Amino acid sequence: MVTAARYYPQLLSVMGNTLRFLPAFVAMRQLLVEGYVGELQVCDVRVYGPSLLDQSYGWTCEELMGGGGLHTVGSAIIDLLSYLTGARAHRVHGLLRTFVQQNGLIRGIRRVTSDDFCFFQMLMGGTGSGSVCCTVTLNFNMPGSFVHEVMVVGSTGRLVARGTELYGQRNGSKGEELLLDDSGWVGPEVKEMPLPHLRGLSSMVKALRQSFQAHEERRSWARGPVAMAPTFEDGLYVQTVVEAVKRSSCSGEWECVEIMSQEPDPNHNLCEALQRNKN
Amino acid sequence: MVTAARYYPQLLSVMGNTLRFLPAFVAMRQLLVEGYVGELQVCDVRVYGPSLLDQSYGWTCEELMGGGGLHTVGSAIIDLLSYLTGARAHRVHGLLRTFVQQNGLIRGIRRVTSDDFCFFQMLMGGTGSGSVCCTVTLNFNMPGSFVHEVMVVGSTGRLVARGTELYGQRNGSKGEELLLDDSGWVGPEVKEMPLPHLRGLSSMVKALRQSFQAHEERRSWARGPVAMAPTFEDGLYVQTVVEAVKRSSCSGEWECVEIMSQEPDPNHNLCEALQRNKN
Repeated sequence: MVTAARYYPQLLSVMGNTLRFLPAFVAMRQLLVEGYVGELQVCDVRVYGPSLLDQSYGWTCEELMGGGGLHTVGSAIIDLLSYLTGARAHRVHGLLRTFVQQNGLIRGIRRVTSDDFCFFQMLMGGTGSGSVCCTVTLNFNMPGSFVHEVMVVGSTGRLVARGTELYGQRNGSKGEELLLDDSGWVGPEVKEMPLPHLRGLSSMVKALRQSFQAHEERRSWARGPVAMAPTFEDGLYVQTVVEAVKRSSCSGEWECVEIMSQEPDPNHNLCEALQRNKN
Repeated sequence: MVTAARYYPQLLSVMGNTLRFLPAFVAMRQLLVEGYVGELQVCDVRVYGPSLLDQSYGWTCEELMGGGGLHTVGSAIIDLLSYLTGARAHRVHGLLRTFVQQNGLIRGIRRVTSDDFCFFQMLMGGTGSGSVCCTVTLNFNMPGSFVHEVMVVGSTGRLVARGTELYGQRNGSKGEELLLDDSGWVGPEVKEMPLPHLRGLSSMVKALRQSFQAHEERRSWARGPVAMAPTFEDGLYVQTVVEAVKRSSCSGEWECVEIMSQEPDPNHNLCEALQRNKN
């Protein structure tokens, strides 16, 4: 898919991660570029909320089918942090847990295998002491609450996005300042979708409209409005980090993030799968 | 010292970690025992604040002399979490960083070696999936702010101590309830000491007074008021965890927490030191 997207650049190919379009994160990135926090040191992200499982048994319960906090929310955060920092993770360490393996609706021989608690660290950018430390905590055992907090700390200040609002504090100042109040959401309320994602989706759709409206016939599109959208390359990067976090949770060790540069040989994969089944 | 404390039980020997005495944590432990959160799953601690370094060069700058976030604050948190959960860490993983190695006052050939950012995870209690995951984030590159938050999440609810106040939320309820409002501190303000530690110290000193006042001559002491004080055994445990976190930060791997059960042979240590110097 990455190769195909590269081959047809006139076709629009963007990943559906909408957090990049949330005004708070657009402003945060702008302020980071302008040097508000100085040299970036630490990113700290936490997302807490109620269970991600569907009412009935389905893909959300299955780790192999893309369920769980890391796949559903973690991937959006991984993409967001690479957008904010302009860097990519080179080493990760993670821990996944499924605290609730059965509930009133998923029981008997069925068990949830997707994570409801996920913690991972990423070392991004330069190697050694020049790298940025990112810590991400996802906990979906907290019904009745929703916390979505992204904090970046640097040598001269810090920025925090809480939900859809952006706060900042420079070293030496007495308190936080509200930099962007984006809480006045006027669209419909969607119970199953947290506000930052909903608000981001709305902005992304607006950008797509602008992109196509720029051309009379709406058969082609302008790059400008969707320039910050994640590409398929970004998608491959995110997927690679997710896999590395899962590997790390099994091995207990730091895992390197190595982006696939060649298309995998499907025969080779088939052989491996057959080999696995034999064992 | 542990052996000596065991040998003279009539002498009072307690560690100076005062957080156990903070009313918010006393209440938190009580509620945990009573089952407020159900089965404990996750503890999440964060302490953010300004630099811990002294104005002039000294022990606070030296990791080997006990400086840094892990030694100064982390050890108090390690002790607190073992008090709250009633369990001990068996495996830890950590990451230490010194982002600010020189400043206006510490410069030239001198460098800070103590950590100003420290992140560690502890697996406590039962092994495997029955263990409690604790994550601790300490960041002392945030002048002008002070965050001291201890959250415990369980199967049926959660408790959060923010500063000296305790909040709780049971699954199914709409919002957090304030369980203990301990913000009305009437003692002196101590600029260099965060309120939770100051308030805890005050409670600990009160407990010590009660302990000695219980006996007429004040030559002996009553166990009751200081029963929850950390013992020297607790101190040894905390030190062992701190060492394991430091080892993990170097190795990048999960490290086991193995409490010393025999007194170390001083000759052996001397030999090792000599050996090191030779290499």
